[in-house]
Amino acid sequence: MATSSSQEQDVQGEVLKKGKPREQKEDAEKLLESKKQADDGQSGGQFVLKCAKGTRDYDPFQMAIREGVFSVIISCFKRHGAVSISTPVFELKETLLGKYGEDQKLIYDLADQGGELLSLRYDLTVPFARYVAMNKIKTIKRYHIDRVYRRDQPRMTLGRYREFYQCVNHRNVLDGMFEACGVPPEKFRSICSSVDKLDKTEWEEVKKEMVEGKGLEEAVADKIGEYVKLSGHFELLEKLMSDMGLTAVASARAGLEDMKLLLHYCELFGVLDKVSFDLSLARGLDYYTGVIYEAILTGDATMKDGEVPAVGSVAGGGRYDGLVGMFDPKGQHVPCVGVSIGIERVFSILESRAKEAGGKGIRTVETQVMVASGQKNLLEQRMKVCTLLWNAGIKTEMLYKRNPKLLNQFQYSEREGVPLLVIVGEEETVKGGVKIRDTHTREEDFVEMAALVPELNKRLAECQHSERV
Amino acid sequence: MATSSSQEQDVQGEVLKKGKPREQKEDAEKLLESKKQADDGQSGGQFVLKCAKGTRDYDPFQMAIREGVFSVIISCFKRHGAVSISTPVFELKETLLGKYGEDQKLIYDLADQGGELLSLRYDLTVPFARYVAMNKIKTIKRYHIDRVYRRDQPRMTLGRYREFYQCVNHRNVLDGMFEACGVPPEKFRSICSSVDKLDKTEWEEVKKEMVEGKGLEEAVADKIGEYVKLSGHFELLEKLMSDMGLTAVASARAGLEDMKLLLHYCELFGVLDKVSFDLSLARGLDYYTGVIYEAILTGDATMKDGEVPAVGSVAGGGRYDGLVGMFDPKGQHVPCVGVSIGIERVFSILESRAKEAGGKGIRTVETQVMVASGQKNLLEQRMKVCTLLWNAGIKTEMLYKRNPKLLNQFQYSEREGVPLLVIVGEEETVKGGVKIRDTHTREEDFVEMAALVPELNKRLAECQHSERV
Repeated sequence: MATSSSQEQDVQGEVLKKGKPREQKEDAEKLLESKKQADDGQSGGQFVLKCAKGTRDYDPFQMAIREGVFSVIISCFKRHGAVSISTPVFELKETLLGKYGEDQKLIYDLADQGGELLSLRYDLTVPFARYVAMNKIKTIKRYHIDRVYRRDQPRMTLGRYREFYQCVNHRNVLDGMFEACGVPPEKFRSICSSVDKLDKTEWEEVKKEMVEGKGLEEAVADKIGEYVKLSGHFELLEKLMSDMGLTAVASARAGLEDMKLLLHYCELFGVLDKVSFDLSLARGLDYYTGVIYEAILTGDATMKDGEVPAVGSVAGGGRYDGLVGMFDPKGQHVPCVGVSIGIERVFSILESRAKEAGGKGIRTVETQVMVASGQKNLLEQRMKVCTLLWNAGIKTEMLYKRNPKLLNQFQYSEREGVPLLVIVGEEETVKGGVKIRDTHTREEDFVEMAALVPELNKRLAECQHSERV
Repeated sequence: MATSSSQEQDVQGEVLKKGKPREQKEDAEKLLESKKQADDGQSGGQFVLKCAKGTRDYDPFQMAIREGVFSVIISCFKRHGAVSISTPVFELKETLLGKYGEDQKLIYDLADQGGELLSLRYDLTVPFARYVAMNKIKTIKRYHIDRVYRRDQPRMTLGRYREFYQCVNHRNVLDGMFEACGVPPEKFRSICSSVDKLDKTEWEEVKKEMVEGKGLEEAVADKIGEYVKLSGHFELLEKLMSDMGLTAVASARAGLEDMKLLLHYCELFGVLDKVSFDLSLARGLDYYTGVIYEAILTGDATMKDGEVPAVGSVAGGGRYDGLVGMFDPKGQHVPCVGVSIGIERVFSILESRAKEAGGKGIRTVETQVMVASGQKNLLEQRMKVCTLLWNAGIKTEMLYKRNPKLLNQFQYSEREGVPLLVIVGEEETVKGGVKIRDTHTREEDFVEMAALVPELNKRLAECQHSERV
């Protein structure tokens, strides 16, 4: 399974322009209806101009944003000493069976082409558990950044996000709460998934679903309602720890002790104010066995009439102590805890903001110097100067035109944020040098060839410094 | 389609150990035969402990090597002003039809689950052409690093690679050569794919295939044999340009002019000695329309008896001017040229070498400081020091044990290449500070808390400097 990289150059190129993606669904439909063209007599060759439903390309602008997000996230993981691993995009179908509950129908299967039955991974957690079991690993702190595949409705609602909060709960506390309220054990999961809707739905509606839709006694639902409105820190813990109904359940009591330790650790790490213990947090709970947490964005209060404030989860996770054991015939217990960050939403928000700001601050190339000329027949000189600069490790470009116009080269530099130009000219060549032009100030200075690289490096170091300031 | 990242922490962890992958195929077979276990009554839950055939996980050691390779490659692309794009892992099946010739049978299809028919991408070139056509792009210089999927026999032969060479040819020169030798036009592609085997197979065997297997006249094959042994630079070009048989073919003459320009540019870029014009280079030629090139590793001459020197392509590409037009109903001509780097082979070689060197020089974590203690009940102190260091941007770890042994913390640091330790102790705490220990020299120095971060930064800057030296 090769990993490929390709670099495309148009040797007869014009000024490079930044490509902008356009939705061409309507065009594609028309194309498919209008014209078929065979390719060397083989099937196919229709004018298919779209991505698979629910998927998208990323253009250079979006990639620049994505790279920035990954950089922040990976730095954080590395700062905390995590290693990285990688697993294949598809697993044996059997590996994924029985792990996702109802969501199993959302798994993409590969066609049976005579070999093993395969499915695209649905998350990175189950492959991780397989990896841990397969390699008999006892301890590992790993991060893994990769795509996962789910056959559901693409949910790309953006809205404006203003508020961001993080909350924490514990599966055993939730179950204990249900027990204390009088929920019949066989309804725990069902009632749990109703509670899970509280981040998007008002309590009255959730209560209605529990009572009318799931046959829960109204009095029981009301008791749940009293609990799920609670959130806080140590004062909430104290309150719950003196709640007889709750602490009568041993596992709930243990869960509360876990929560107490967690909040204490958050305090030591200086982040207590960044989380809250919130009894309305439920999550999918497929494989969670202990603490659970979620980071949520809520919409701007200043909504237009009729608009529902957008809500989106950006991260979530918890403890899942039983998963690795499912892969190990000896049932070896390997406790796990983790978090998953849904960066598509973060990308989208940053992309919107960047566009609103006119794309400022986002560069799609990191080019530092453009080698230019306005006079004819200086292509070879430009190429030699590029070579000199590349060999010095300077990020350098030139236009792929034999005799480009100087103005086009200036405009390219301004548009792409290239800070400096080196201008090759007949007069300067005779004098044994070139001109350096500052894209921003537009000032030009002659410099001898021997001093070119040191002078460029000096100016580039100053650029970087002022960018940081 | 979410991109997820997960970080796993074992809060009751022991000393972190580097996990090593082990082939467990035999174990997996035994497991499947021995025991079945249902998961909540659902199907699945078998002890599946293997990856899909032909795929593999990457452990932290391999990921560290991979990251190093990507870093070098991406730096190069950025140095030359390339942007990056990303496309989905699967395309509409129709998009890939009719693009790969015989190799089409190697494409992974997704199951028909009631939606669109999809296939996993086979390369990054066809998706790129679709992207260019879809967005009506005229010029772009892009790199794209991602996995591609082919249902063929995994070819992971390693061997020792010693010699590395790069060669260049031109489709029109090849075709002109065949015409000049008297190959019937309908046999061009077939003969071409025989010539393609010359990197691995001796001429006599290739000639036999052409004459006996493909019905070529022996005299014609002999003429081809005279050409394909030729390689060189400008002197070869001169020779071919005065070859009447070859230059009688107009497209071959144009191809030779292209090659002359290419070699001239290589000379200007200072890399002429790194390539050779080689008439035995054919490549798959599915969509190539002009220049083609390949970078090849050949095996060590000192082979054991009976061992065939390994040969492997590490990069290849060429010009493919007709591909984008296949996606555009107006047939808009967008010439393209590119290269694909097969980094799996490069990884494997570097991995072997690193293992031979005992893993020196490869770190799986970038941790700079381990916060340690040998005395009991200093967990909270360690956590606070970690927080201080993380807030200062220092990559810091501590062991996830309440009362770890000092020796284990020293050994972890030595094994993982962590250069410094900060040791928390009762005595030092009373004095208002901690000890800094140099992992390498084992020297320990007291430092007050206020001076801790500056002192660590100073020492870490010195470490980095001496690493580079």
